[in-house]
Amino acid sequence: MDKKALYALSYGVYVVTTWDNGRPTGCTANSAMQITSSPATIAVSVNRDNYTNGVIAESGHFAVNVIAEDSDPTVIGRFGFFSGRDTDKFDGVPYSVKGAMPVPDTACAYICCKVVDKMETSTHTVFLGEVLDAGVVGSGRAPMTYAYYHNVIKGKTAKNAPTYQGD
Amino acid sequence: MDKKALYALSYGVYVVTTWDNGRPTGCTANSAMQITSSPATIAVSVNRDNYTNGVIAESGHFAVNVIAEDSDPTVIGRFGFFSGRDTDKFDGVPYSVKGAMPVPDTACAYICCKVVDKMETSTHTVFLGEVLDAGVVGSGRAPMTYAYYHNVIKGKTAKNAPTYQGD
Repeated sequence: MDKKALYALSYGVYVVTTWDNGRPTGCTANSAMQITSSPATIAVSVNRDNYTNGVIAESGHFAVNVIAEDSDPTVIGRFGFFSGRDTDKFDGVPYSVKGAMPVPDTACAYICCKVVDKMETSTHTVFLGEVLDAGVVGSGRAPMTYAYYHNVIKGKTAKNAPTYQGD
Repeated sequence: MDKKALYALSYGVYVVTTWDNGRPTGCTANSAMQITSSPATIAVSVNRDNYTNGVIAESGHFAVNVIAEDSDPTVIGRFGFFSGRDTDKFDGVPYSVKGAMPVPDTACAYICCKVVDKMETSTHTVFLGEVLDAGVVGSGRAPMTYAYYHNVIKGKTAKNAPTYQGD
């Protein structure tokens, strides 16, 4: 098996946010996709070792925030390489509440969901969310693709990501 | 809800293939993503109205074929806008068998999977496949992104796609 074939799949760069008893938290994700169009639903894959996983399961809500290409990459790292278990990830990260969910200013679009189903796999939970609210932030800001993150920003992939390929 | 926010998610362009009692068939898809890294698993969303859906459920196997950017767009249309129920979709489409699955020549990478789980939604089945084989075809062929398909090729989205947004 040539694992390089898996690199050929295309993704965006997202921060999945939720509320941890009134405190905003979240994690970086790239595996998110629309599943149905009417009603609109979104699936996102989150590692069970991620603190955000349990918080989404408990709160029953998440937002997929689409990170803009012009974002400061340290925000992606902050959400991807630290844990909300012992870090206030939103400390120093400007955000606003949209669709009742925390939306970092680095997002060019947000999709707020209510968990309607989930599928457990060996390491990750696939949360299926029905879209309750969604919006575009600013105008003309391009979404960052995973290819851009890797090839232009030279960003790294966290060990807990579905697309982690080893060191 | 501003549905334009959903356009900000990034995707590739794929043809999901399978065997229909020895006959190759398949459908165009854009909602496919890696779910776990070890073992590698892939989720793909296929409308239950698509003939391919039932064939995957019955055969228990599918391949996600990553369409190269330089592909003839009529192949994408052939797999996206006709039904394998009454059409031999591979008629006139060059392909070879790799990892025991049909791989059209327009693919720059293929990922062959065994179905290990599935999640039913209102209209689509999310198949979870464990990767049995995967490979890159040719060298240096860029994967087509959904953005390229829409913006450069001016491709359309089929009604059965998760990302269909109405006429």
